[in-house]
Amino acid sequence: MIKNPRFKLFGIEDYRQYIGDKKVEQIKEKADPLKNSFVSHCNSTLYGGGVAEILAPLTILMNRIGIKTEWRVIQGTPDFFSITKKFHNALQGDSVNLTDLKKEIYEWVLKENSLRNRADHDFIVIHDPQPLPLINYYDKKQPWIWRCHVDLSEPDKNLLNYLKMFIDKYDAAVLTLKEYDQDFKPPRVFFNPGIDPLCTKNRELSDSEIIDRLEHYSISCGLPLIVQISRFDHSKDPEGVIKAFKKVRENIDCNLVLLGNVATDDPEGEKIYKRLLDYQNEHIRILSVQDSALVNALQRKATVVVQKSLKEGFGLTVTEAMWKKAAVVGGNVGGIKHQIDDGKNGFLVSSIDETAEKIVKLIEDENLREEMGRNAREKVRKKYLLSSCLENYLDLFNSFETIYRLDYKK
Amino acid sequence: MIKNPRFKLFGIEDYRQYIGDKKVEQIKEKADPLKNSFVSHCNSTLYGGGVAEILAPLTILMNRIGIKTEWRVIQGTPDFFSITKKFHNALQGDSVNLTDLKKEIYEWVLKENSLRNRADHDFIVIHDPQPLPLINYYDKKQPWIWRCHVDLSEPDKNLLNYLKMFIDKYDAAVLTLKEYDQDFKPPRVFFNPGIDPLCTKNRELSDSEIIDRLEHYSISCGLPLIVQISRFDHSKDPEGVIKAFKKVRENIDCNLVLLGNVATDDPEGEKIYKRLLDYQNEHIRILSVQDSALVNALQRKATVVVQKSLKEGFGLTVTEAMWKKAAVVGGNVGGIKHQIDDGKNGFLVSSIDETAEKIVKLIEDENLREEMGRNAREKVRKKYLLSSCLENYLDLFNSFETIYRLDYKK
Repeated sequence: MIKNPRFKLFGIEDYRQYIGDKKVEQIKEKADPLKNSFVSHCNSTLYGGGVAEILAPLTILMNRIGIKTEWRVIQGTPDFFSITKKFHNALQGDSVNLTDLKKEIYEWVLKENSLRNRADHDFIVIHDPQPLPLINYYDKKQPWIWRCHVDLSEPDKNLLNYLKMFIDKYDAAVLTLKEYDQDFKPPRVFFNPGIDPLCTKNRELSDSEIIDRLEHYSISCGLPLIVQISRFDHSKDPEGVIKAFKKVRENIDCNLVLLGNVATDDPEGEKIYKRLLDYQNEHIRILSVQDSALVNALQRKATVVVQKSLKEGFGLTVTEAMWKKAAVVGGNVGGIKHQIDDGKNGFLVSSIDETAEKIVKLIEDENLREEMGRNAREKVRKKYLLSSCLENYLDLFNSFETIYRLDYKK
Repeated sequence: MIKNPRFKLFGIEDYRQYIGDKKVEQIKEKADPLKNSFVSHCNSTLYGGGVAEILAPLTILMNRIGIKTEWRVIQGTPDFFSITKKFHNALQGDSVNLTDLKKEIYEWVLKENSLRNRADHDFIVIHDPQPLPLINYYDKKQPWIWRCHVDLSEPDKNLLNYLKMFIDKYDAAVLTLKEYDQDFKPPRVFFNPGIDPLCTKNRELSDSEIIDRLEHYSISCGLPLIVQISRFDHSKDPEGVIKAFKKVRENIDCNLVLLGNVATDDPEGEKIYKRLLDYQNEHIRILSVQDSALVNALQRKATVVVQKSLKEGFGLTVTEAMWKKAAVVGGNVGGIKHQIDDGKNGFLVSSIDETAEKIVKLIEDENLREEMGRNAREKVRKKYLLSSCLENYLDLFNSFETIYRLDYKK
């Protein structure tokens, strides 16, 4: 029925062109002992934000390599997501007034969700704080892994203490960076997320595909184009980007596009988007759409891609842009400072002035942009493709095979 | 941990106050043979629209009565939802250009989703056209039920013919009304959805709770208040409501609120909402928020609740308003004309003039509003509570117990 070659279920074989024969075979060997095992990934939204973007291709890749993998999403009320967003922000350094009511709404929603989802898998992977308390509502029969994607370097201590009640019941905690480590009971494992080079957002585009997509949104390419792509969130500092852009325009005529979408688990996004609309003018475009092909086109066509985050668990939009050989200016924080080697494959910045300065430097120097772009792609190829992320999960699951699994196995 | 009595898992026992002892016992008896059986409900969104609102409490109710029930949601691309929305509209009377590309995108998304979801349940219930083709991608081991919530009285024949390829593989098709019947291979069963009287949207509210909620959105109650609550969709005729309201205001000073939210599986909603904003003025308020307590408050405080739909599979917002003893003016279509007995528990209308006329009549006659409201609540109590819907599912599942189940049972 489905004949169009565009509709293909990608598997690890399709990564051979990027990571080579040896790595592909290595990953397949690691998957062997896990054949026919049964995994559940659970998070809080199907759309928007990095986690959903990882889980969409990762769950396919895992199934295709022989591990039956489900993707479960919890359902929450607006109250719940307003609380979990506060938790998210507080884990990244804000403070939160942790009332009993907040705790009760949080736990209650997960109690309801536990009824609607079995947990009879061999491994259960819970992503981020939203579904964390699920573990309280099951007769636990298997390893539970908490995969935390946020920057835990300066969490609100009171909140972390409360969440530890749940975290400490898990069998492992996966954190993105060593500097996010905290005093949890389960062993900590550190690995990055990764991007899928084969999906609509990252696949190769022809020049005409790029132009078509940009024209569809009336985005002009007549002037140098500065782009930031991320959820509308304070930690991404969209206002800072606009200020830096205004400084750039004191010297060079150029355009700015801020593109984001609003995730169902992020109630703040819409408000911030609406506030940003006040900055729109003939040179500044604020766009809220869910269109992966547009992201792809913008990252490929941009003169400079900015990701001026103040906090950033990892920063997949930086990875995506680097993969496309973009010249990237990123905030010197979290995962970004591990991805960008300052001056080699992009620039790290810590202020609005510095952001403006590096943007100007890159706009004025095409050779520098090209050199940095080549280095950027190579770094992503080696370290940040989804195949690495898959391999890390396989290693983690296999470690349970020897350590825990005999106890847990049904 | 959860002490607040507000956080309670409701079960069939909590319906005793509405439907009486005998009915509760009857439902429990019907659940008995299904104890420990395992059901999957699958639809295309967790938020917005009637189906998600039924599944949220129904899945809890089923679990609480002893049937392990999961709620699965498919993940789709914007392309996919743009196509399924066209299909939805075409099933309700529009036409659609059914290209191979549309079919391929539709089937492809479900093929991907089949990888991410097991189907090892005793019964699988697929809601509406979006996830319909899932059945193609499983080794079918149990009864599959297609639950179609849309008005199928005048479907696009070409589209229906294509969808029959999938529908005919199912073991039963549940339609809301006899007049939606079509020539499908599986037997057809007819039953209504129902509302949960215990949820935030429908529970009793004190006067101060109502006023608080309306004030939160600066909705004034100084003048008679006309309200329509529904997704922003052409078939709900929001422009028609505005025209009718303007006619009403030629005679009586009053206010209108159109409240909707945008579901993740409805790409048209946002566009229609934005277009309606042009009509906003000091008397007409267009609101797009997801706030069940606001819906509750509006339906209780409205002088007249309008649901001027041109097509309406069932019309749960009418049921909700009737339950709250509202005076309802509804389009004489689909499920609305079964819910409203014209002149007894509300008015049925077929034009803008008629809508305006009935609104005026109701604003001017408080006794009539109260009488109709009482009759309306009684009709919902007897026929349209979620307990009836549960009972109908139990009957359906039990019919398989004798007819099919031996063949399918693992």
